[in-house]
Amino acid sequence: MMKKIALLGCTGSVGRSTLDVIREHSDLFQAVAMAAGENLEEFVLQIMEFQPALVSMKTADLAQELKARLTGNRGSYEFRMPEIVYGEQGLISVAVHPDADIVLTAVVGVQGLKPTLAAVQAGKDIALANKETLVAAGHLVQQAAGRSGSSILPVDSEHSAIFQCLNGKRTSDVSRLILTSSGGPFRTKSRQELARVTAEDALKHPTWSMGAKITIDSATLMNKGLEVIEAHWLFDVPFTQIDVLVHPQSIVHSLVEFLDGSLIAQLGTTDMRLPIQYALSYPNRLPTERSRLNLAEVGTLTFQEPDMVRFPCLSLCYQAGSAGGTAPVVINAANEVANALFLAGKLPFLGIEKVLDQVLDRHQMATAPDLDEVLASDEWARRTAFELAAELD
Amino acid sequence: MMKKIALLGCTGSVGRSTLDVIREHSDLFQAVAMAAGENLEEFVLQIMEFQPALVSMKTADLAQELKARLTGNRGSYEFRMPEIVYGEQGLISVAVHPDADIVLTAVVGVQGLKPTLAAVQAGKDIALANKETLVAAGHLVQQAAGRSGSSILPVDSEHSAIFQCLNGKRTSDVSRLILTSSGGPFRTKSRQELARVTAEDALKHPTWSMGAKITIDSATLMNKGLEVIEAHWLFDVPFTQIDVLVHPQSIVHSLVEFLDGSLIAQLGTTDMRLPIQYALSYPNRLPTERSRLNLAEVGTLTFQEPDMVRFPCLSLCYQAGSAGGTAPVVINAANEVANALFLAGKLPFLGIEKVLDQVLDRHQMATAPDLDEVLASDEWARRTAFELAAELD
Repeated sequence: MMKKIALLGCTGSVGRSTLDVIREHSDLFQAVAMAAGENLEEFVLQIMEFQPALVSMKTADLAQELKARLTGNRGSYEFRMPEIVYGEQGLISVAVHPDADIVLTAVVGVQGLKPTLAAVQAGKDIALANKETLVAAGHLVQQAAGRSGSSILPVDSEHSAIFQCLNGKRTSDVSRLILTSSGGPFRTKSRQELARVTAEDALKHPTWSMGAKITIDSATLMNKGLEVIEAHWLFDVPFTQIDVLVHPQSIVHSLVEFLDGSLIAQLGTTDMRLPIQYALSYPNRLPTERSRLNLAEVGTLTFQEPDMVRFPCLSLCYQAGSAGGTAPVVINAANEVANALFLAGKLPFLGIEKVLDQVLDRHQMATAPDLDEVLASDEWARRTAFELAAELD
Repeated sequence: MMKKIALLGCTGSVGRSTLDVIREHSDLFQAVAMAAGENLEEFVLQIMEFQPALVSMKTADLAQELKARLTGNRGSYEFRMPEIVYGEQGLISVAVHPDADIVLTAVVGVQGLKPTLAAVQAGKDIALANKETLVAAGHLVQQAAGRSGSSILPVDSEHSAIFQCLNGKRTSDVSRLILTSSGGPFRTKSRQELARVTAEDALKHPTWSMGAKITIDSATLMNKGLEVIEAHWLFDVPFTQIDVLVHPQSIVHSLVEFLDGSLIAQLGTTDMRLPIQYALSYPNRLPTERSRLNLAEVGTLTFQEPDMVRFPCLSLCYQAGSAGGTAPVVINAANEVANALFLAGKLPFLGIEKVLDQVLDRHQMATAPDLDEVLASDEWARRTAFELAAELD
């Protein structure tokens, strides 16, 4: 049976890979609703190819221009003009499209929260590549999923790995989740060196091809910290039982330790299409002609403890996650600001951790916040992060 | 509920580890019937501690002496004298003991076949540490298990790993089983060096503490070849989809590749008590205080292709397994003889592969043999192996 997909974030790295998977299995998957941000050129081509019923872009102007381009591009072949919407409401319309069975949310940042929540409330399954949604409001998403019966299926390679390792196992037998981390592009740098690194240095990250925001988060280990919080909400495991293990080759995508000491790991190539496809095909697996992992060719895998002294963002995430309430949304929002300022050359690398630390420090935490409180905390943290960054500049 | 265990091969390496597990979980496991070979001293102590209802030793003389020792050792505390039997019939009586829920077969060699088959026919679950049983007569054991409803649970660390990786997964999604191998004590030796190695050299094998027979099999990679055949019967996967991967650290105990390219692996310390406990506690896992695997401490894992030119026994096992019929029982029997002759200093190391190759070469294979044909082929192969070895000597 054809599985119908709403895709949020079509022109990003995960969005493109998702369309690859849909293209490869066009007998099984169909994109019925698609949202992109500002990349008009690419989105036009994607829409011409996949012919969704509903599309959305970031602004009214972009939506207008998209309409003109699609009208102009209409060739001799049968092309059905999609409904075109825009903005936050447009993103939500795509997420709750009545034909969609599953929503793959690959937008970046906390903007994914409202559409994901709406989709969950509408009973859609979620293939979640937007970790900020669970970081900001994991309790609200899981409550809503509990009520509607939605499944939240991980797309991040680490969480997909844990999901695959747990499949068929009793979660009561789990003693520890172990998220692997490449260690980021600055894994071997001293604090003195870290004080001087630039965004360009980080963007050379060799192992995974990712967007700019996540590449910087990978450099600070903030990405791993957010993943720890995401894992907590996805798998209902306390923070004391979630560890991070640095593994520069990124072949072992994560592991689960069981209470008898046995470890189950998932391994694979560093190809995002694998976890994306698994989330879409779950509980089935689909054959693929893509290249296989050959461990004899890889030869060597190495592992080491993460260094939370050189990379304190990771330990700040453990603190915020354990504190709960609005602390995670606040550290995430502060990070979105600090990350963007570092990318823009307006904050030194070590300024990111300072901003996060001080925003957390000043935050008046609310426990069990509702959506309005979550969004208000997000706002407050962004404002405060900007102010603090300006002082540091 | 107490699980009642019949244990064949109490005083070997796996037998002792099994008794450790029973001792550690004496609220869950009870040894109701126990068989040993010739190690009277140790068996007396085991019987005094575990107080099984039925015990067996190799010969009538040993059984007689055991009775005298147990009578003499009876102290002031409540000790219930077990029924004492012996020989092949004794082994079978232990295996089909009416109180036993599960039979752990840890005897070495094809002598495990008859008792295991008898236990399967009696509807007992089998925790199988005796790989020769499935190598010699996998088709008969699986047929009998299909009829009686017995589960065959692997105890070998590699097969336990695959069993754990597959648990909850659909076997139709499996594309490949990958058995890891330490590479044995002679992994880095050239053919010239292999021509001169002795049994003493092999018995220094550092990673696992094993019996002498299996240590030599590990040195020839024959052990891995027998495991390939065992895996074929345990998991119903064709030989073309079973690979061997050399992994000297023996941390990754084996892997399963799925048809989407994802690999699931099981990792752990090199402690046989883990797979033994899993087979006994399955489908549950039991907590343990034993030391955990710390991958950051291990640091490095390496992998390479096995070298079937330097270690042709592995490739002979693939040949025999693929040929099927009586070929596997023949290569196993020839190996039992050649292995023992090498241990006794009566055959050079490279003589083992020569004997195996020539026995296979001379064998008139029967397809779908019944038990008598299996045992006749075993007999023939032993005789022929002795003759060939004498010619080589």
